[in-house]
Amino acid sequence: MPGNRQVVIANVPTGPLEPSNFEVREGDALAPGEGQVLCRTLALTIGAGQRAGLQGSASYAGAPVSGVVMGGTGIARVEESRAPGLAAGDIVVAPTGWQELSVHDGAGLQRVEAGIDPALQLGVLGTNGLTAYFGLLEVGRPKAGETVVVSAAAGSVGHIVGQVAKRQGCRVVGVAGSDEKCQLLVKELGFDEAVNYKDPGFRAAFKAVTPDRIDVYFDNTGGDILESALFRMNLRGRIVCCGVVSQYDTSNPGPGPRGVPGLLVNNRVRMEGFLVFDFAARYGEARRELASWIERGELAPRVTEFKGLEAAPRAFVELLHGGTIGTTIVRL
Amino acid sequence: MPGNRQVVIANVPTGPLEPSNFEVREGDALAPGEGQVLCRTLALTIGAGQRAGLQGSASYAGAPVSGVVMGGTGIARVEESRAPGLAAGDIVVAPTGWQELSVHDGAGLQRVEAGIDPALQLGVLGTNGLTAYFGLLEVGRPKAGETVVVSAAAGSVGHIVGQVAKRQGCRVVGVAGSDEKCQLLVKELGFDEAVNYKDPGFRAAFKAVTPDRIDVYFDNTGGDILESALFRMNLRGRIVCCGVVSQYDTSNPGPGPRGVPGLLVNNRVRMEGFLVFDFAARYGEARRELASWIERGELAPRVTEFKGLEAAPRAFVELLHGGTIGTTIVRL
Repeated sequence: MPGNRQVVIANVPTGPLEPSNFEVREGDALAPGEGQVLCRTLALTIGAGQRAGLQGSASYAGAPVSGVVMGGTGIARVEESRAPGLAAGDIVVAPTGWQELSVHDGAGLQRVEAGIDPALQLGVLGTNGLTAYFGLLEVGRPKAGETVVVSAAAGSVGHIVGQVAKRQGCRVVGVAGSDEKCQLLVKELGFDEAVNYKDPGFRAAFKAVTPDRIDVYFDNTGGDILESALFRMNLRGRIVCCGVVSQYDTSNPGPGPRGVPGLLVNNRVRMEGFLVFDFAARYGEARRELASWIERGELAPRVTEFKGLEAAPRAFVELLHGGTIGTTIVRL
Repeated sequence: MPGNRQVVIANVPTGPLEPSNFEVREGDALAPGEGQVLCRTLALTIGAGQRAGLQGSASYAGAPVSGVVMGGTGIARVEESRAPGLAAGDIVVAPTGWQELSVHDGAGLQRVEAGIDPALQLGVLGTNGLTAYFGLLEVGRPKAGETVVVSAAAGSVGHIVGQVAKRQGCRVVGVAGSDEKCQLLVKELGFDEAVNYKDPGFRAAFKAVTPDRIDVYFDNTGGDILESALFRMNLRGRIVCCGVVSQYDTSNPGPGPRGVPGLLVNNRVRMEGFLVFDFAARYGEARRELASWIERGELAPRVTEFKGLEAAPRAFVELLHGGTIGTTIVRL
């Protein structure tokens, strides 16, 4: 039985996340029981939302515990199967966590095509892409000609939201955290405009790039950017509440945005939270559509890759500091 | 031509509203032009939302100006008509403002049955009742068995919201600003529970009366009560944003509630603002239904009355201090 290196939560962060909140250890040998499979992790994806899982009971992921393997979704190869319908060599998406090996009940596992790059499987065809797809199309419901604004626009979800909105015939404005990201959004991903929220002139710039105000605001951040968007919403605008990255990397979230609920009343704005899991019954349909858009060159997913399990904590911290673009992947 | 006493805005309030923000004066004589009618005000209604109109451009009512007649809706009798289809003696609902006489274009006026008490016309069959009706049924969409919470529950809109929700088979909890109001809600208006938000133990009491959490929260207040409700929402709960009375009586509104947008995401909550005017095409249908509920004893609208035009400023201040119950009416 091979060794199983794991990244565990060494201590629950009380301020901004640091690599020292994690440590690498050698786990116990694993063997699949009846109906189970032993899997070897090929790649992991890391998302900002996982930071919420380290915040305690305030999050939907429940309270964190130190000493346990950091959770996460991976692409894995079945090493040994005692589950019907799964054989050694099959490729699956699984809640592997940050470790080399993991054991899962075969029943709940999703087998994927072996030939497709794990970065695609975990990114645009995984939770990130599906979140963008259902959040924008089902919650935001943009119409052609409307203005769509997305925050964390160069992030795993945001960069897909913007491209899908363009496909729908919308005018698309991205909000991101560096001039480099803004340039990428406009020059390579087809956004009409992008503004850097760290720029001191952000509010004026934001106003200037939304001359017809905002019909759909896809919010990945909460906080000040949400507040800026609230003050620019059109009558009957929709705010898609997808994530709160501005509040994740702290144990002391700030107050809510000014203008709630007054501006919602005045402008008859709908603000709605969602989780992608609510749309699980329609994942297949969405994946097929996303894949066809990629094939036709209408959607260009981006990935930032890290090499080796030990890089996962650093990847997570860089992601939270805005240092990654598109889906963040750790290849083992 | 008779005199026309008027209440004008003497000075725009910078803190809590006081009667001294208004003054009574004698206005110029009025005569209707071609297509117009001269109306004598019989009764005025005052709503907390009018305080927003004195806050400047932050409100949907536009910036206030001192020296002008205070705006407002009244029931009036046509004294002289030069408009087709309207005759002296007709009773109309009109934007009379706080004055004895006013001139209006006949075209836009809504004639009402002469026999119905102006307090009903301006209250449950007017904007207050229609706001409760459409906000609850069309935006909140409560299902039988669900828990509905309403703030400012003894107010003009709130006391109708609660009763309509009971009719829909919901469990209804009111939040109000005094123990007397809470008793009235439970003992006379059929609310299942009511809690006083001024009580130091409010948060614990609020939790205790919402053991199954909240499916629909009808928010007339914003602020701390909205924040408390946000933390008690059920999965797929709906927050109907109707008014922000906690923020009206100030020129310096506070920050938004904590939990926006994080809790909206976690619990997939929809938070939606509306204005009753959006449903104008369906007012007739709603009035007929509300009237039928009153007739059958399923809806008991309440009114707090003041006598004389000079009482209007005091009525407004008392309303904002929570000193009135149901619709606030000034009879001239």
